[in-house]
Amino acid sequence: MSEKLYFASDYMEGAHPAILNRLIETNLEKTSGYGTDHYSESARRKIRELCNAPAADIHFLVGGTQVNEIVITSLLRPYQGVIAAETGHISVHEAGAIEAGGHKVLTIAHDHGKISGAQIREYCRAFYDDANHDHMVMPGMVYISQPTEYGTLYSLDELQKLHDACREWGLMLYADGARLAYGLACEENDVTLEDLAKLCDVFYIGGTKCGALFGEAVVISDPGLIPHFFTIIKQRGALVAKGRITGLQFDTLFTDHLYWQAGAHALKEADQIRTALKEKGYRFFFETPTNQIFIILDNETLEKFGQKCEYSFWEKYDENHTVIRLATSWATDPEDTAKLIGFLGNL
Amino acid sequence: MSEKLYFASDYMEGAHPAILNRLIETNLEKTSGYGTDHYSESARRKIRELCNAPAADIHFLVGGTQVNEIVITSLLRPYQGVIAAETGHISVHEAGAIEAGGHKVLTIAHDHGKISGAQIREYCRAFYDDANHDHMVMPGMVYISQPTEYGTLYSLDELQKLHDACREWGLMLYADGARLAYGLACEENDVTLEDLAKLCDVFYIGGTKCGALFGEAVVISDPGLIPHFFTIIKQRGALVAKGRITGLQFDTLFTDHLYWQAGAHALKEADQIRTALKEKGYRFFFETPTNQIFIILDNETLEKFGQKCEYSFWEKYDENHTVIRLATSWATDPEDTAKLIGFLGNL
Amino acid sequence: MSEKLYFASDYMEGAHPAILNRLIETNLEKTSGYGTDHYSESARRKIRELCNAPAADIHFLVGGTQVNEIVITSLLRPYQGVIAAETGHISVHEAGAIEAGGHKVLTIAHDHGKISGAQIREYCRAFYDDANHDHMVMPGMVYISQPTEYGTLYSLDELQKLHDACREWGLMLYADGARLAYGLACEENDVTLEDLAKLCDVFYIGGTKCGALFGEAVVISDPGLIPHFFTIIKQRGALVAKGRITGLQFDTLFTDHLYWQAGAHALKEADQIRTALKEKGYRFFFETPTNQIFIILDNETLEKFGQKCEYSFWEKYDENHTVIRLATSWATDPEDTAKLIGFLGNL
Amino acid sequence: MSEKLYFASDYMEGAHPAILNRLIETNLEKTSGYGTDHYSESARRKIRELCNAPAADIHFLVGGTQVNEIVITSLLRPYQGVIAAETGHISVHEAGAIEAGGHKVLTIAHDHGKISGAQIREYCRAFYDDANHDHMVMPGMVYISQPTEYGTLYSLDELQKLHDACREWGLMLYADGARLAYGLACEENDVTLEDLAKLCDVFYIGGTKCGALFGEAVVISDPGLIPHFFTIIKQRGALVAKGRITGLQFDTLFTDHLYWQAGAHALKEADQIRTALKEKGYRFFFETPTNQIFIILDNETLEKFGQKCEYSFWEKYDENHTVIRLATSWATDPEDTAKLIGFLGNL
Repeated sequence: MSEKLYFASDYMEGAHPAILNRLIETNLEKTSGYGTDHYSESARRKIRELCNAPAADIHFLVGGTQVNEIVITSLLRPYQGVIAAETGHISVHEAGAIEAGGHKVLTIAHDHGKISGAQIREYCRAFYDDANHDHMVMPGMVYISQPTEYGTLYSLDELQKLHDACREWGLMLYADGARLAYGLACEENDVTLEDLAKLCDVFYIGGTKCGALFGEAVVISDPGLIPHFFTIIKQRGALVAKGRITGLQFDTLFTDHLYWQAGAHALKEADQIRTALKEKGYRFFFETPTNQIFIILDNETLEKFGQKCEYSFWEKYDENHTVIRLATSWATDPEDTAKLIGFLGNL
Repeated sequence: MSEKLYFASDYMEGAHPAILNRLIETNLEKTSGYGTDHYSESARRKIRELCNAPAADIHFLVGGTQVNEIVITSLLRPYQGVIAAETGHISVHEAGAIEAGGHKVLTIAHDHGKISGAQIREYCRAFYDDANHDHMVMPGMVYISQPTEYGTLYSLDELQKLHDACREWGLMLYADGARLAYGLACEENDVTLEDLAKLCDVFYIGGTKCGALFGEAVVISDPGLIPHFFTIIKQRGALVAKGRITGLQFDTLFTDHLYWQAGAHALKEADQIRTALKEKGYRFFFETPTNQIFIILDNETLEKFGQKCEYSFWEKYDENHTVIRLATSWATDPEDTAKLIGFLGNL
Repeated sequence: MSEKLYFASDYMEGAHPAILNRLIETNLEKTSGYGTDHYSESARRKIRELCNAPAADIHFLVGGTQVNEIVITSLLRPYQGVIAAETGHISVHEAGAIEAGGHKVLTIAHDHGKISGAQIREYCRAFYDDANHDHMVMPGMVYISQPTEYGTLYSLDELQKLHDACREWGLMLYADGARLAYGLACEENDVTLEDLAKLCDVFYIGGTKCGALFGEAVVISDPGLIPHFFTIIKQRGALVAKGRITGLQFDTLFTDHLYWQAGAHALKEADQIRTALKEKGYRFFFETPTNQIFIILDNETLEKFGQKCEYSFWEKYDENHTVIRLATSWATDPEDTAKLIGFLGNL
Repeated sequence: MSEKLYFASDYMEGAHPAILNRLIETNLEKTSGYGTDHYSESARRKIRELCNAPAADIHFLVGGTQVNEIVITSLLRPYQGVIAAETGHISVHEAGAIEAGGHKVLTIAHDHGKISGAQIREYCRAFYDDANHDHMVMPGMVYISQPTEYGTLYSLDELQKLHDACREWGLMLYADGARLAYGLACEENDVTLEDLAKLCDVFYIGGTKCGALFGEAVVISDPGLIPHFFTIIKQRGALVAKGRITGLQFDTLFTDHLYWQAGAHALKEADQIRTALKEKGYRFFFETPTNQIFIILDNETLEKFGQKCEYSFWEKYDENHTVIRLATSWATDPEDTAKLIGFLGNL
């Protein structure tokens, strides 16, 4: 096992050492609970500043499905559903969390994980044109992820168009930023935290996959948007007693741009792998700019590859080929990248 | 501020140093997610052994309200409710989590936080005697906490009687062990992990208040009791991606009896405070054997006390008196205990 | 059996003959569905006029529990609960419908089925005074029934005070009028439909127990209070395809004051029974002005009584006595009343 | 208006005269409530016999969406969803009732409203083959409608195959029989009540669209399948106080084969219209054997048609054509059919 390489996901290690260091330094301080401590407050201040959203309501939760479920059910009225790409995390891989919260996920077709303002307009127009629409689930919000589940990125222009379509049809816009570090640090990215805060009603900044032990920071630019969100968080079992642990992690990630550094490291490793794959003639399922790489391998090659390297199965391509995902992270060891590249050459 | 004493709660610090150390040691290991790692597996093995429940299904979640909501809604059928003391955490301080999950909390009177098998029998008898009971919420389970929210403990005999009443009337028995370390390590305690595993259908071993950064270990002795509990956990947003973090904490807590040591430390400090309070003639609201101490202060004394020491307001006793709670923990500094005792003498 | 008398409840017969006649007359007319027909519209017009609420939103549903659940869950936000008397129908006899809808029923003590504005104020003051209230269920509305489950009536002054307390603390006020005909037609009643429409945010006018085959009319004075209520009704399975059937029944009940006549008939019969009970020295559990009568019988007498007359068991009074309820209705045959009175004399 | 024809739906009139007559005859009888009366019991007996399911649990509810929501949420466990055609009533036109009940509708492609055993097998195989399926919604049951929303019918062979696939993969099979009379009475139909009772875990016999004022009869062949279904019905606000009204309607529909006669009448009228449409060269969207007829009209013709006859808009066919639905019912006047046919000839 000692020789195996691991590129299966971006949540295989613990936390960025800077975070562990601060946990150690502060361990025996006594603070008040439930996120009322000064570490959480400091993290909120830094995030508000980076978002240029001085009044934003910011809450630190534990995981992405939890955030999605709580934000979405808090924003929707009982008769509303959420529009999402059919590939959206909430559509497929959250075990029906949104439906368990009482709401339908209204899936639409995706383009490499993305949806567009034009699709939203079309969906809404068709809905309101339907004579029976008051017997149907009204679209109440739009869910996107940045980067998407396919590792692609919305451009600022695309995000603006989604925002405009949402405003036009009275929908909320919500962005799942589970891997946001790998978007923000990406060369081709032109969407900043400030843009997200301005164009989305709510979004979250992922910690779990971006250097933290766990944790996601929910940003609600308009602090009056979800009244009593604290109590809702408590009710859904998502309130961390020692809130300082989550707050401190985000405080660290947003000190000296650690969040961007963590992202940039993963992207550098991913770029090297991408370049090597291209040089060696591997076939991409499609190209992505972030830390996730999707390639198509014939099953025989995959068999050999799998003996040496852990990967994520994505989908069957055809009888003889399979799509797999390789992911780098803030923790990827450059030596492992080099080994992987060497190994790819020998396959 | 530097001089203030803090006895307000048992979740003001980070984690037991032994836990931090292991987080550091293992930080860059790569493991699979969602609790499938070997640290989680090792923790499960240790807990199963201590519980003498070799087949038990064990899951690591993040917090107590979360565990309560998920376990209770998983065990109940739609037409059932859960019997609990009117002082039970689920009855009062979980922001309606159980109701949000669709179930009524059927509150009954408490005796210093405890309820009895006799009360369960009486409740069930009255329910089934009521000609309209099929228009009412059927009791489906019983919720207790060990220690209780009042710091008291069920004896083995009391627990056995609750168990018997539950079996007689077809109810599940569930114990909330948020502060279990402070019960297990208590001199007067005669309820072991093995007893809990045998007499309760489900219980949880608290980590957050007992030395961990966060985390609670749910023990289901009969592994078939809640099918697909993993997926339910995921659906409720309670599945931790880096499950190893929680697993590792419990693995540490159940290595070399750290969990009992952590509990014993808090109890030793609490005992010293109790003794001093008695010697100095303070008035107890009632006596407790665990890490929570409830005293009645006149409001003038409380004013002075509060300037020096953080405490928890419990309830108004009368116009001129207030009940407050003092809590020790695994992290209480003996010097702080000494200072508190000194201070109590001068009030 | 042919000789048995039936005073067990007010929903033992079909519908007032005037309703059946109109069902027959209109049977083969073709109308649009879901309450968009002209009979429903005519009923709405009449009710709006009687309520002096020209813009009121009015919906016809099937039964009381259904109305309660849908109105309450539509008015409450996820973190809120509904205050009700511990004897309220929603507190006891709706099988946990409100909790199944996600909300806690916050029960308070009752005075013969009634609660007061002072109690509401006290509840809210204590709630907001509690330092942990954001970990608790916020009161969001008040549920009352008129007449109550105990057959008592709120006076206009009492209703005004409830309204004032609700306004003061930001609560909605909702009245369950399952037996409203028996309140409106009562001599001692001073609360009109207009008062209810003005002082309650929502209330419903009971049909099922007041002369209809089935049906309850929900009155929302402010038509913007519950957006998309139609779709909510559909979603909860409460939208009747042939809405005209319900509409027509209410149109009939509110033509020529049939609703008041139906109520008055029941009250006249009840008054005769009450007078006879008093004359004959029967012991009342407490006195009521409406169609429900509560008396205490020793168990031996009850045994004989039950052989001749169907009644509702209310509760055990003591070892040897039982509280029973007798109910009259729009359909009570005066001959049956006479027989009952005769029989009471012979017991 | 007096001259307009109405073929928009099958729920435009009241009830079959035989039902009204029995409501009148029995109106002042006093019966116990909630379906415990002898009319309901008699209806149950007749249905059990026709289903050859002597132990079947039978409940009378009010409407189809209500039945679907209550049955489906009662049969599913929290982590499960229901497979349905993307055209299924629960998928589209129930305002998210199933999701409001906590469950995902897992939509699959349809063939004229129908799905197949092969599709179920394929869906389940793909689900269990997916390495992440425990992060996804497990299929727990299959929903079909007989006749479908497209007026088509499952053959006995098709139903058997669905049943077999469900058994193979551990799924429940549930049939929505909102228009069952129009299936049972159909010449090409080979699925009997007995077959439905044998092959489906639960199904319902539609009353609302088949001659009743309202009402649907839920048949659960295995009486232990949904424990405490009565209380669940109460909790969901679906328990009718005067249950005898619904029971009596079904007792009448299942006396002297009225249900089949009601269906046969609609089919005879529909067949005449179909024949005329064919003779006159109208274009069918697709052919159906039951009381719903789908034709494609160019928009100009539709404009004229609509002035004379009410119809249901189904969908746009292309820029210049529209699909409409015509429906007959137990109440369709043969004179109206003749007029429609005459009118169709003149368009």
